[in-house]
Amino acid sequence: MSDLPHAPLPLDSHTVFFVSDGTGITAETFGHSVLTQFDLRFKQIRLPFIDNKEKAYEAYKRINDAYAEQGLRPIVFSTLVKAELADIIRQSQALHMDLIQTFVEPLEKELGVKSTHTVGRSHNMSDTKAYQNRIEAINFSMAHDDGQSHKNLVGADVILVGVSRSGKTPTSLYLAMQFGIKAANYPLIPDDFERGKLPSALYSYKGKIFGLTIAPERLSEIRNERRPGSKYAAIENCRYEVNEAEAMMKREGIRWLSSTAKSIEEIATTILQDLNRTDVEINW
Amino acid sequence: MSDLPHAPLPLDSHTVFFVSDGTGITAETFGHSVLTQFDLRFKQIRLPFIDNKEKAYEAYKRINDAYAEQGLRPIVFSTLVKAELADIIRQSQALHMDLIQTFVEPLEKELGVKSTHTVGRSHNMSDTKAYQNRIEAINFSMAHDDGQSHKNLVGADVILVGVSRSGKTPTSLYLAMQFGIKAANYPLIPDDFERGKLPSALYSYKGKIFGLTIAPERLSEIRNERRPGSKYAAIENCRYEVNEAEAMMKREGIRWLSSTAKSIEEIATTILQDLNRTDVEINW
Repeated sequence: MSDLPHAPLPLDSHTVFFVSDGTGITAETFGHSVLTQFDLRFKQIRLPFIDNKEKAYEAYKRINDAYAEQGLRPIVFSTLVKAELADIIRQSQALHMDLIQTFVEPLEKELGVKSTHTVGRSHNMSDTKAYQNRIEAINFSMAHDDGQSHKNLVGADVILVGVSRSGKTPTSLYLAMQFGIKAANYPLIPDDFERGKLPSALYSYKGKIFGLTIAPERLSEIRNERRPGSKYAAIENCRYEVNEAEAMMKREGIRWLSSTAKSIEEIATTILQDLNRTDVEINW
Repeated sequence: MSDLPHAPLPLDSHTVFFVSDGTGITAETFGHSVLTQFDLRFKQIRLPFIDNKEKAYEAYKRINDAYAEQGLRPIVFSTLVKAELADIIRQSQALHMDLIQTFVEPLEKELGVKSTHTVGRSHNMSDTKAYQNRIEAINFSMAHDDGQSHKNLVGADVILVGVSRSGKTPTSLYLAMQFGIKAANYPLIPDDFERGKLPSALYSYKGKIFGLTIAPERLSEIRNERRPGSKYAAIENCRYEVNEAEAMMKREGIRWLSSTAKSIEEIATTILQDLNRTDVEINW
């Protein structure tokens, strides 16, 4: 991460602040989503846990300092719940995108009840059943990564299959972490192709198997980073494995998608849709 | 996940839709954050990949059907970028929380440029360097989970230490997945306490070690789920290990926090702050 080569920022880029009384993850996720609508680069600063007046005044000062330095109004995405803290931030010289205030008021009207003004509840739920399920799903996915364990596959919500480095591991972990889905994953390896059969442990669970495939060229690139010049990474071998894996998935009637041009978020969401998991678990 | 015991929903609860032309993860994350401000339970439905008119009309129909069924206006959180699709959804009978439209316009004014109206860019970045760094961080954290490997510790951004089941693994994975941080983790075990020293592999990296501790009572609960009635899970043993681990961290000058009442999001954000990682990586 530290050696990430950034394109140099234009000197006149606005500074963006994500201000929150909790982790700031919501403000940041949302802010990114809006900012990606612009072909500009922004210097971004996360200001989490702004949960008292002193910290709010510090944040206020940092925002004004950025303005003074750059001569451009900073942009503030905030999810401050307490009105007195939100008020302090709002007095700073910035364009304010106040997520909570903007949407909570119309909701109060619609629902006919007042909001509780509880701080940081969306990422402060360590005592809820749903949170414990997420942690359990992470542990499950770790224990069932890369075909490590056949135990408790009956408890899996989904079993991902595919050739080595097709994206199974990060997708399994994301499904567990974001959605509380217990995702096991199994590699499809040359032995399986020679036998022409899925790993035998999987046959009882065919209904919940989902396949990942990948363009052989991309696969060869990824494998070459790990084992440069190996047979494992050679384009001919990658073509062979991908062809065999796709043929096997077709033969076995396994649903699959290509991970080549998709992010793990997109892969995970597509799998959820396929599993008919569009109903969101109630998690608070 | 499937056996999550839900509290029964009150019959009159509003239905909430998360509508997006991408994964819908931003709409959902943000929607949760607003809805947690209310002491109510909502039926929630995720409608991702609404990227053409046909799908938009289907979504429109689902929203109106929910209204007809319940007699209560649904609540729609949407991040549709294309105006023609947003317009279709907006005609449905619901309270509309249109995240992009609400904030993009004032930003266009401030920045003096038009938005690109690009769909789903925030979770569709599989070809960027930052995305590849996240994947690399996930692989790194997986390979360095639970002290599995001493190799490449020099490349770690942070090394978490703590007794078994103090929250190191989910925190490491979250740091990698959300923030692209390469997080290794090392258990502190009775052998280390007897020797009165950190695992020797860690001494060269003391500057980037961060400790997690946990209340012995909570630790005993968690360990009992895994190995009921074992010495490992016994409260006396948990007290011993936690005391020893905390004493060692104090002695070695290692910064630490208690994971007992914190979510992985809160732990991860606190560690980032401590590492002075409040500047967000530019990731698009």
